[in-house]
Amino acid sequence: MSKGRMEAFSDGVIAILITIMVLGLTVPHTADLAALLPLAPVFLSYVLSFVFLGIYWNNHHHLLQAVKHVDGRVLWANLHLPFWLSLIPFATGWMGENRFAPWPVALYGIVLFCAAVAYFILARTLISLHGQESTIAAALGRDFKGKISILIYLVAIPLAFLSAWLAFGLYVLVAVIWLIPDRRIEKTIAK
Amino acid sequence: MSKGRMEAFSDGVIAILITIMVLGLTVPHTADLAALLPLAPVFLSYVLSFVFLGIYWNNHHHLLQAVKHVDGRVLWANLHLPFWLSLIPFATGWMGENRFAPWPVALYGIVLFCAAVAYFILARTLISLHGQESTIAAALGRDFKGKISILIYLVAIPLAFLSAWLAFGLYVLVAVIWLIPDRRIEKTIAK
Amino acid sequence: MSKGRMEAFSDGVIAILITIMVLGLTVPHTADLAALLPLAPVFLSYVLSFVFLGIYWNNHHHLLQAVKHVDGRVLWANLHLPFWLSLIPFATGWMGENRFAPWPVALYGIVLFCAAVAYFILARTLISLHGQESTIAAALGRDFKGKISILIYLVAIPLAFLSAWLAFGLYVLVAVIWLIPDRRIEKTIAK
Amino acid sequence: MSKGRMEAFSDGVIAILITIMVLGLTVPHTADLAALLPLAPVFLSYVLSFVFLGIYWNNHHHLLQAVKHVDGRVLWANLHLPFWLSLIPFATGWMGENRFAPWPVALYGIVLFCAAVAYFILARTLISLHGQESTIAAALGRDFKGKISILIYLVAIPLAFLSAWLAFGLYVLVAVIWLIPDRRIEKTIAK
Repeated sequence: MSKGRMEAFSDGVIAILITIMVLGLTVPHTADLAALLPLAPVFLSYVLSFVFLGIYWNNHHHLLQAVKHVDGRVLWANLHLPFWLSLIPFATGWMGENRFAPWPVALYGIVLFCAAVAYFILARTLISLHGQESTIAAALGRDFKGKISILIYLVAIPLAFLSAWLAFGLYVLVAVIWLIPDRRIEKTIAK
Repeated sequence: MSKGRMEAFSDGVIAILITIMVLGLTVPHTADLAALLPLAPVFLSYVLSFVFLGIYWNNHHHLLQAVKHVDGRVLWANLHLPFWLSLIPFATGWMGENRFAPWPVALYGIVLFCAAVAYFILARTLISLHGQESTIAAALGRDFKGKISILIYLVAIPLAFLSAWLAFGLYVLVAVIWLIPDRRIEKTIAK
Repeated sequence: MSKGRMEAFSDGVIAILITIMVLGLTVPHTADLAALLPLAPVFLSYVLSFVFLGIYWNNHHHLLQAVKHVDGRVLWANLHLPFWLSLIPFATGWMGENRFAPWPVALYGIVLFCAAVAYFILARTLISLHGQESTIAAALGRDFKGKISILIYLVAIPLAFLSAWLAFGLYVLVAVIWLIPDRRIEKTIAK
Repeated sequence: MSKGRMEAFSDGVIAILITIMVLGLTVPHTADLAALLPLAPVFLSYVLSFVFLGIYWNNHHHLLQAVKHVDGRVLWANLHLPFWLSLIPFATGWMGENRFAPWPVALYGIVLFCAAVAYFILARTLISLHGQESTIAAALGRDFKGKISILIYLVAIPLAFLSAWLAFGLYVLVAVIWLIPDRRIEKTIAK
């Protein structure tokens, strides 16, 4: 079974999600700069979600590079991830339109948490298919970034009710962790 | 004639359908948990439709693996299926927004029924092109799942007017039948 | 220069157009059958547009099968076609929402006419690149269907102001001409 | 690392952007020609944005033809470009709905400017990866068009507050510069 269509489908879904999110930026009916101001929080949450979807596309790309074959379980694990990603535009819109109120910020974290778990399941499914000695198992290693992300989400979600901005800061931290080139951070933190 | 673009087109349509469905989840204007509650039935119908579109993508993927060549009839049979699939977001939204009222639940079943028939026609068209001795004919076998699905839809559609939830339960049953790994269920039930 | 990305882009645009058209079918807020009735003309125009976009995808698929190489002019001719196709959802919605009033029906024909001309230009550009002795020139032949379609549109557009349904019937006729398997009709009518 | 999925993702995003822009053309509720008139500025800005997205797709296509391999930095530079392109539908809608008022026209220029810079960064990242002696470095040459475009945007953005139509004219000029077949203009102007 080939992985080509699985890649094409995932690319399609992420490309669409990234672009329909922008529909949340509703065009103002007046033409002055002040009309853009209420859109600022929507735009800010859009930027973060764009980065997260970009990270997922990037990681998915890397993950599938090392994949040799796929089976039925992999196809479903690979459909499970877009399900949670597909909720990002909704959570982004709710968070942005309500200017980072506690519940929307918490829900945003829950969706990110579920997506991270879905990615973890996909990676494990691929490793169990290829074996512990495979390139893919070696490439993922101890998966430090994946595990720390899930941990940070678990802290950030309840924190949203104390300080929504602190929770938002933690989401940004996760994005930064993934944006830093691969090996280095693992080696540094793992010491 | 190559099947590559046919696959790419089908993947594109299903990826878009899965993601535009999420636009039915309109972002609430208030930020409390209570604002999410009215979305619960919309979300529930979204989950079921996501699973159904996932099943169609998955089955289409398997079906085309065994295909060697395509002709004009196959291209049209392959366009006929997305027509019905493209009505799923509409039926999903109607069912979700009206909290599983009889008519929307019945219409949802009718759309699923037509999609199942379109898939059946596509499979038959491919078999008639490749011959009864082909891999694709062998792979489809007696097509137990396809036939039982169509039968369940035919029962569920009128049932929606007696009990919409029972009809909905039957749709879930069809999804479960397809989610169970391939061979086993056929062997079990066929005994 | 490869034609792969040109195909992928065209497939993407047509797949998206076919699916966003369905957003024109706005979900009714009541759950009875009567709520669907006002959607009937929208649905009817959706069906015709789905068939036309399917025909364009199909023809584009066939056209590019015979293509050996592409250049800058071809890329632009290939972008020109989706421009007119991208107006089909708008024209479809206007025609459906206004129940086949004269102006919307005429505009629908104008968009179809422009798309047909864009397709004609694309085909000519490809032939001028490959030469009159090429497979692609032979495959297109006298392009009877393409020319008769343009002619029918030219009749149907003014006719919309006398009888919108007659004009609509002519659009359906064009679709039927393309749906009839390729060679036969040309031979029959060309006698 | 292969460039295939990077191309597929970029094609997907541009195809989706080009088509969701058309959703900005809201279907009028009356059926006479007068109902289309208020859409004229929206349509005009749509045409320009369609051409710009077409130019980006075209250039991206050419750029990646000369690419031999990609790395993590290239993937991110390639995600940076769609971020700015994804704001084109919003800027297009704001400009069209407010009939080319100063602020919207300026914002449109800012988005085009940022997209041009993102493209410049992508090109530089690819050259630094392939070396100054590579095909890609030779193909880009002094990148006259890229640099003059950025310069014109810098003039047009403040100009929008004096004469929005003059600024708009400069955007059209940039589009024309790119539409003229490649080599010729460079040779002519560079004399």
